[in-house]
Amino acid sequence: MASLPVAVDAMGGDRAPEEIVAGALQAREEDGIEVLLVGDPERIGDTGHIPVLAASEVIGMDDDPGQGVRTKKDSSLVRAAEAVRDSKALAMVSAGNTGAAMASALLRIGRMKGISRPAIATPIPDLGSTPTVLLDSGANAECSALMLSQFARMGAAYSRCRYGVAEPSVALLSIGEEKSKGTPLVREVHQLLSADASIRFVGNVEGRDLLRGAADVVVTDGFTGNVALKCLEGSLRFFMDTLLGVLASDDAAKAASEVLLPKLAPIAAELDPEGTGGAMLLGIDGVCVISHGSSSRRAVASAIKVAHDLALNGLVPSLGAALLAGTG
Amino acid sequence: MASLPVAVDAMGGDRAPEEIVAGALQAREEDGIEVLLVGDPERIGDTGHIPVLAASEVIGMDDDPGQGVRTKKDSSLVRAAEAVRDSKALAMVSAGNTGAAMASALLRIGRMKGISRPAIATPIPDLGSTPTVLLDSGANAECSALMLSQFARMGAAYSRCRYGVAEPSVALLSIGEEKSKGTPLVREVHQLLSADASIRFVGNVEGRDLLRGAADVVVTDGFTGNVALKCLEGSLRFFMDTLLGVLASDDAAKAASEVLLPKLAPIAAELDPEGTGGAMLLGIDGVCVISHGSSSRRAVASAIKVAHDLALNGLVPSLGAALLAGTG
Repeated sequence: MASLPVAVDAMGGDRAPEEIVAGALQAREEDGIEVLLVGDPERIGDTGHIPVLAASEVIGMDDDPGQGVRTKKDSSLVRAAEAVRDSKALAMVSAGNTGAAMASALLRIGRMKGISRPAIATPIPDLGSTPTVLLDSGANAECSALMLSQFARMGAAYSRCRYGVAEPSVALLSIGEEKSKGTPLVREVHQLLSADASIRFVGNVEGRDLLRGAADVVVTDGFTGNVALKCLEGSLRFFMDTLLGVLASDDAAKAASEVLLPKLAPIAAELDPEGTGGAMLLGIDGVCVISHGSSSRRAVASAIKVAHDLALNGLVPSLGAALLAGTG
Repeated sequence: MASLPVAVDAMGGDRAPEEIVAGALQAREEDGIEVLLVGDPERIGDTGHIPVLAASEVIGMDDDPGQGVRTKKDSSLVRAAEAVRDSKALAMVSAGNTGAAMASALLRIGRMKGISRPAIATPIPDLGSTPTVLLDSGANAECSALMLSQFARMGAAYSRCRYGVAEPSVALLSIGEEKSKGTPLVREVHQLLSADASIRFVGNVEGRDLLRGAADVVVTDGFTGNVALKCLEGSLRFFMDTLLGVLASDDAAKAASEVLLPKLAPIAAELDPEGTGGAMLLGIDGVCVISHGSSSRRAVASAIKVAHDLALNGLVPSLGAALLAGTG
């Protein structure tokens, strides 16, 4: 294959490097995607035919992102970002420290022209339909109105590029549907998005609408987005655990579970963050996928495929065109 | 009975006045609580022995709260608040416009001494334990550090008074456990709460911890709190609907549901917002319970009982003492 590989941070994530390496192997075997594993060759071990880019340091999950990137210049995350910068890789994938992944991408690959700050876009499953893209889901705890209006455009371009939604609906997360609801920032952004002819703005949505597929893209600041996303994740886990407890509570329930589990399994699979391919850092001059910290090999393989496909499909130029739309 | 009645806004809520009146009757019959129904006597109809305080106007769900209270002086909400102010009622209950209930209470009953702004405290069920109190869940879209530190003290006093938790744990909602995480406001509040010897501060929690009973009280601004609460409500509904769909999907599933529904019903009941007694407006110089807009008679009866019990148990003096603690 002539195509460039996807650089994968082999040291990032709760189950690194074993599950990361296994995911890379899976992506190569099942999808024919070339991978470059980045990290400590000794700890990575046998990778079959997958090349390894040596990096002696690791930015841990608890390290300060900015400081980690500045001081650990030979870390797997920094080296993965440099591989993208130096055109040695198509895209990068990490299941490690989210803030450090963002800082590495920002400092080594750089921002897209005209963008104020990058955002993390996370897919929220919508059963039987394309996911709702929530952004920012945690990159920027504080946002300006300009940032949020750029997130709206980038989110729409991402929904088109990744999910093939021709004219994605874009909503603003608030605490009521009326444009008068929310903080002064939210009200200002509501006005900006209403006036933006380059997107299909459908108004405010509330927290309860996120699992309803009420819009293709939902825009919010990184603090609210992160709280909302973790509320949904926590609820999913809570309900799954509660239901499994009931299904195992006695013999009659166990018999009932034999009927129900095959019906519930595909729904659970569709809701499982492991299968979504991870979150995408938008606004970087390259493709950077951030996979869940607890990613299994399946999640890693899925993230590699998403990164590969979006790099080849021209995600970055699409975002650039969306940012420029109507500003001339 | 010599005790004062609970003033109930008969016109507020999606199912008013029928379910409100039925709830008032239930509270009187089952709990022996005196009620004063406030609203249009013709629309209220037959109330048995329950007295009616006539009010000719209604502040609708979509009315602007401040304007509604200023212009509709003979509305059921304003008259209910005046009944508390004039010592004709122990407490007030409404399932109507939340903002207008707060504005009525603020403008007619008034703030507690020393309080910056009132907050809405909503119970989040914790299976088999006392609920987690989330505040502010929507009264103030923007908050100062002082407000949030007052919410922490009021929330702790409320958890003691309502749920009998001797030393409630208080947490701050953020996007990571470390004190460095979150917005500048959240970091400042973290410092204030860490230094407040009158509460048992346990640090930051995340969205995924809200259903885990990670703390007795979780403090946040009204925008984030409202989004989080609605995410949880939306998830609950989504999972219930999905599960019921699976349980009705064919004959084998229906047979399984006969085994499972009796086991799931008590869990669903414990999670149901209808059974929690509603949200409490804290920081008002009186007891004001805000019931869910879709409240049934059961929810209304439960809210009346909570309002009655907390007024007699001295919620307001307890909050006052908590606010003063350590400030002398």
